[in-house]
Amino acid sequence: MILHTIEDVREQIKNWKKEGLTIGLVPTMGALHAGHLSLIKKSVEKCDRTVVSVFVNPIQFCPGEDLDKYPRTLDADEKLCNDAGVNIVFAPSPKEMYGEGHILSNDFLTYVIPPYFYVDKLCGKSRVGHFDGVCTVVNKLFNIVQPDYAFFGQKDAQQLIIIKKMVKDLNIPVEIIPCPIVREENGLALSSRNKYLSEEDKKEAFVLSRILFNIKACYDKGITDVKALTETAYSFLNEHHNLEYLEFRDKENLEGKTVADKDTQVFIALKIGNVRLIDNILLG
Amino acid sequence: MILHTIEDVREQIKNWKKEGLTIGLVPTMGALHAGHLSLIKKSVEKCDRTVVSVFVNPIQFCPGEDLDKYPRTLDADEKLCNDAGVNIVFAPSPKEMYGEGHILSNDFLTYVIPPYFYVDKLCGKSRVGHFDGVCTVVNKLFNIVQPDYAFFGQKDAQQLIIIKKMVKDLNIPVEIIPCPIVREENGLALSSRNKYLSEEDKKEAFVLSRILFNIKACYDKGITDVKALTETAYSFLNEHHNLEYLEFRDKENLEGKTVADKDTQVFIALKIGNVRLIDNILLG
Repeated sequence: MILHTIEDVREQIKNWKKEGLTIGLVPTMGALHAGHLSLIKKSVEKCDRTVVSVFVNPIQFCPGEDLDKYPRTLDADEKLCNDAGVNIVFAPSPKEMYGEGHILSNDFLTYVIPPYFYVDKLCGKSRVGHFDGVCTVVNKLFNIVQPDYAFFGQKDAQQLIIIKKMVKDLNIPVEIIPCPIVREENGLALSSRNKYLSEEDKKEAFVLSRILFNIKACYDKGITDVKALTETAYSFLNEHHNLEYLEFRDKENLEGKTVADKDTQVFIALKIGNVRLIDNILLG
Repeated sequence: MILHTIEDVREQIKNWKKEGLTIGLVPTMGALHAGHLSLIKKSVEKCDRTVVSVFVNPIQFCPGEDLDKYPRTLDADEKLCNDAGVNIVFAPSPKEMYGEGHILSNDFLTYVIPPYFYVDKLCGKSRVGHFDGVCTVVNKLFNIVQPDYAFFGQKDAQQLIIIKKMVKDLNIPVEIIPCPIVREENGLALSSRNKYLSEEDKKEAFVLSRILFNIKACYDKGITDVKALTETAYSFLNEHHNLEYLEFRDKENLEGKTVADKDTQVFIALKIGNVRLIDNILLG
């Protein structure tokens, strides 16, 4: 069942709550792929009822980003959800989520703002305000759906860490379930933005996972010096790869590491042409 | 029953929810007086169960404010709550609310930030960051208690407007119940901070309500020019009164008014000695 209004969702949720059913939420921006599907499957298995939200959230796009051209495939998304046993696809309009005239600046809208220490690095450095928009919309979705569990992919690792922090800091009564990255055969982590890649670029794009797998292999062999591990990465890069960051940080609090250990997560972002790709791996 | 931990409260709330009982929350900083009691009574009447939180929230005090000397009277508060039929007094420590080492800066804590347009005026102008702290703690309390209704006094009018805006913007499933100001015989609005007033200051303090009642009387007689209404106030002030603001604004969105109408709320703040007092009145 596809619903477009907050009121209709609340009505359905209320009935489920009365029956004592558990509710899973999979928040998405649509353009669903096998990565999303793995989250959905996990929710359908774990929860009595599953809600998938499909909402291209304007306030998490920065100026100059791809809000207008972000892929929108609602009919296909709905079919995929139905086939997977989803109970509600919640696909609101921006107006439904942010009100008449939907003035999206922090002059007129209450925001949920993650801690500066968590956003002044990695993707937050180039995508200023992005995680404010993410936390705000996820908070709204939590309040609308009131799920017992919410499922997030580990591919957007900084997002996952920030949302877990938000849930803890604000005492939100939702359990966050992280789900492993789904990859193509060549290692490329699935992303809705992979659609922007040409066939040629796609071949280049496997470099992210290659670098990460290599670092993990080196770590497993006993190399823990972050400088040494970083240097092993450079040999994989060529003129098509515009590296934004390659960083070793604590998997919980994002503190930087100089010596890798089991709690170290490695984060990479690079551009191929105009397409910005991210990936990550946990060493432990 | 007094509870000090989030876990204990959640446990009790869970049972009530299972039984389908409605829950009212009265968030306070303690030092309860007849104003709080009127909120508590309303909740006890309206809801199956009532929770009163007593928490002097450090993150809503600005540097130089009265965090340390703010009155703390938990034993008396508990007795008053018990007598009024409250089911839970929730009195957490700062550590319980903000964690080990409770680092309270926005470097390390997720904040709920009200819109700038709502906080750059009235009390927000001198109390920078105050409403960020209020919204954050109220959001936390809502997530912990998951009330159906929450009761707020109209005395802190800007706070009430900002919380209503937060609830709307973040789709929080709580209904906010505003409660009228309770006044002493001479018109002084009840406040925990009235304890700071000497007997002599207390006599001076009735000037706030006197100014507001006079403006309302003038408005009722047909005077709507805000400049003229403002000027009627000045005759009541003497050298003991240090006026911070006297403003006419929309009761919902805080836009400034030049002509008073039924949606106009008048806000006043002034200092007597070192004690800062606020009051307000709705003209319509």
